[in-house]
Amino acid sequence: MKILKSIILFVLFLSYIPAFSQGLEEIDSKGMNKQLVRIAELEIYPEYWEEYKEILIFEAKESVENEDGVVCIFPMEMKSEDFKIKILEIYANQKAYEDHLKTPHFQYYKSNTLKMVKELKLLDMNALDTQTMQAIFKKRK
Amino acid sequence: MKILKSIILFVLFLSYIPAFSQGLEEIDSKGMNKQLVRIAELEIYPEYWEEYKEILIFEAKESVENEDGVVCIFPMEMKSEDFKIKILEIYANQKAYEDHLKTPHFQYYKSNTLKMVKELKLLDMNALDTQTMQAIFKKRK
Repeated sequence: MKILKSIILFVLFLSYIPAFSQGLEEIDSKGMNKQLVRIAELEIYPEYWEEYKEILIFEAKESVENEDGVVCIFPMEMKSEDFKIKILEIYANQKAYEDHLKTPHFQYYKSNTLKMVKELKLLDMNALDTQTMQAIFKKRK
Repeated sequence: MKILKSIILFVLFLSYIPAFSQGLEEIDSKGMNKQLVRIAELEIYPEYWEEYKEILIFEAKESVENEDGVVCIFPMEMKSEDFKIKILEIYANQKAYEDHLKTPHFQYYKSNTLKMVKELKLLDMNALDTQTMQAIFKKRK
């Protein structure tokens, strides 16, 4: 009984550590704390510009519409500089990202655009407010 | 009658120019074509880092939750570089943006963070696929 009492006290103690209880809460919420947020910055060879965009739009659309774990793949072109693309990418977790890499639409994108991309930077980001994301992104519950 | 015929022919001619008819179509779709998409890139003075983020998170949350025309204000910090922020901002149209600038929470943000910002770049962007945005952003209908 003494051991049981110790365990109960220990659990009560843990629940008072904010970081620990928050950790539990985050892990519980469908692993969304493990989300990956990234901005991809690309420069495209001018001769492939239109063709590249067409393939990218298709890839993003397929991913967002058919993959539960793809919260956002949102491609934009810069207004002030030609042939430059930025893509906001959000994956629910590491597995969702790895699954995404295996899809036919991503494979098609990757193999067909390899020669079109002059430069690619992948910037890993942290969302500052994962709570308010629920009010922005449809798949962020 | 000759003038009328000329006008009709001119209008028919215009409707065959893809850019022109696309323009008309976009204006019809609830003015969503007029949306503003922007990435703000900031560098913050180290001594204000935590304080700046707190004010930014508050401003973004208030805007997203209370302004219909704010489709997205999504602040991120770079993982690889200290004191660097990127914010994806989407406003439903020019008026929504102007209204946003007048809100107390934006005014509070602007006046309190002015001294904290070492560098600010505002990059105007075009969404490549305004259709698929509906599947990403809650307020993009």
